[in-house]
Amino acid sequence: MNTTIEKQRVLREPELLELGTRAFEGLGLAHEDARDVARILVMADLFGLSTHGLGRIESYGERLGVGGIQAKPRITREQRAPAIVCIDGDNGVGPLVGMRALEAAMDTARQTGVGVAFARGSNHFGPVSPYSLIAAEAGFASIIGSNATTTIAPWGGSDARLGNSPVGFGVPNPGGRPFLLDMAISVAARAKIRNALKRGDAIPDTWATDKEGRTTTDPAAALEGFLLPIGGHKGYGLALLVDLFAGLLSGAAYLTHVKSWVDAPDEPQNLGHFFILIDTRHLGSTTWLAQRMNDFAAILHGSPPAEASRPVLVPGEIELDNLARHRRDGLALDPAVLALLEEHAAKP
Amino acid sequence: MNTTIEKQRVLREPELLELGTRAFEGLGLAHEDARDVARILVMADLFGLSTHGLGRIESYGERLGVGGIQAKPRITREQRAPAIVCIDGDNGVGPLVGMRALEAAMDTARQTGVGVAFARGSNHFGPVSPYSLIAAEAGFASIIGSNATTTIAPWGGSDARLGNSPVGFGVPNPGGRPFLLDMAISVAARAKIRNALKRGDAIPDTWATDKEGRTTTDPAAALEGFLLPIGGHKGYGLALLVDLFAGLLSGAAYLTHVKSWVDAPDEPQNLGHFFILIDTRHLGSTTWLAQRMNDFAAILHGSPPAEASRPVLVPGEIELDNLARHRRDGLALDPAVLALLEEHAAKP
Repeated sequence: MNTTIEKQRVLREPELLELGTRAFEGLGLAHEDARDVARILVMADLFGLSTHGLGRIESYGERLGVGGIQAKPRITREQRAPAIVCIDGDNGVGPLVGMRALEAAMDTARQTGVGVAFARGSNHFGPVSPYSLIAAEAGFASIIGSNATTTIAPWGGSDARLGNSPVGFGVPNPGGRPFLLDMAISVAARAKIRNALKRGDAIPDTWATDKEGRTTTDPAAALEGFLLPIGGHKGYGLALLVDLFAGLLSGAAYLTHVKSWVDAPDEPQNLGHFFILIDTRHLGSTTWLAQRMNDFAAILHGSPPAEASRPVLVPGEIELDNLARHRRDGLALDPAVLALLEEHAAKP
Repeated sequence: MNTTIEKQRVLREPELLELGTRAFEGLGLAHEDARDVARILVMADLFGLSTHGLGRIESYGERLGVGGIQAKPRITREQRAPAIVCIDGDNGVGPLVGMRALEAAMDTARQTGVGVAFARGSNHFGPVSPYSLIAAEAGFASIIGSNATTTIAPWGGSDARLGNSPVGFGVPNPGGRPFLLDMAISVAARAKIRNALKRGDAIPDTWATDKEGRTTTDPAAALEGFLLPIGGHKGYGLALLVDLFAGLLSGAAYLTHVKSWVDAPDEPQNLGHFFILIDTRHLGSTTWLAQRMNDFAAILHGSPPAEASRPVLVPGEIELDNLARHRRDGLALDPAVLALLEEHAAKP
């Protein structure tokens, strides 16, 4: 075994941040902007969410290359009311616009107790949980969401008119593990349907419809159809709500107005995001909050597991355990991702 | 047919409000307080949500009778920050505390653009959608929720430790139909499982677990077990989030600290609610918002239905159609509910 190669693959958090920053600088971003993008994507990798981590440099880089995303956007912030701030991302990289909106929401919440930021003119902003964790560590409870390219049919409809919009929530726990929930609205990811097809298995009829909008247990038909939202009309409604806040109210595109970055990588998507932040220090002391949050988790952990080997978890625990482990041991990136990062980082 | 009886049963909205107000006055509430409670419950009936309408006077009245709810609470409002207000309901009737919290959130949002109200010391506050509609008609987008008696097991757990917490969302549409979504977190209501048992049908394995926390298709086993949340761990997380905001952050009870109003009707439940209101007038003109909201609905309505007879709906349309019809034609209350209302209304 070649230990040099092994060492090269396992990177510590500061190395990941450094490499990610240099790679996005290689793609034309200013140093501080590249560092903020890297911060979100590296945190995704450390959480174990590698599908939303530094590997995203492939699609972001492709769109930066063809001018579908601006490397040096002029992001503007407009304070619309004491507690409302609007961000125009000027078609910058999503996590950069996301970080600017998060900062604006935190600044606003420090003034009035609550900060609501609406961002337009953005792109895929990565996973929600890194933003939620940054907010929670600064004392803010949060509701954060983004709209997305249309892949889901309306409930009872038969063509893709809404996105599998991500939404996330965080509640701080001073000195302990915050509550973090980050979810898309579909019952199952398309990858799970592809895996069922490979194995020759049927899928539950709650996962997807065929292309006419009828529920199906056939994975092949499902892959030509549409993902189903959790809870049927309930998840449909939730996905719409996220799009209404992230897209419609923000002044961004919504529903079918959102451009597909796969079909039209060179066109601005005009995605939108929203950040609702509440400063928990106005509700009680950090001791009060920590005591309640730890009690809350203890009550849930105390439920006897239905399967003895699988104890009850509080949302966020898996990601926060991964984060702690990767901060301690370092992380092995996918070799192809590592190579791409190094290629971009080597640019003059 | 006795037309006198027919006429007696169909009441117009002002008559329903008048009767509801007098009935809650009969139960000891002050006139203005009784009127506010009636306003929420009557709107529920007009929406077609009769399980959450004036019929609730039965359980509310029982608890008022045994001192489990205070008829004349001293509800206090404390402005914790320019955009945060906290309400102590002093164990008043839920829709009364809910209305006071909604008013506090609206007053706050008029000042800073966003108003967040946390209420503690409350009880069952009715359905969410009446509050959402009142907020939407005043120009506010809203996220509103309450915690509830524990009936759901944690995901992977085997005893009831969280409530089937209701959460609702509203977005105004000036001059048109607002978006209204009001949902509990369970896949199906217990009533649907009872109906399956009566018919001798199996239930989908996504609805409930048996009493050991294992999924089941047997409605009898399900009725001894726990309702399942939508989307499995996703709905579990959503239910927790609602309890964190409504219960934990508000200073109310949460999870198993919430008392059951069935098992202990004479004890305060200390339920909590939260109201997040955003004044949409800071985001654009009413014309801008109406144009976008109507376009949003038109895009969804334009999806060819999977079943020709069932066109695609936007959340809230069924309830708003019911409201318009009942405002035009009046509403026939359940005779037992009508009798109970008249009995309480006749009290000196």
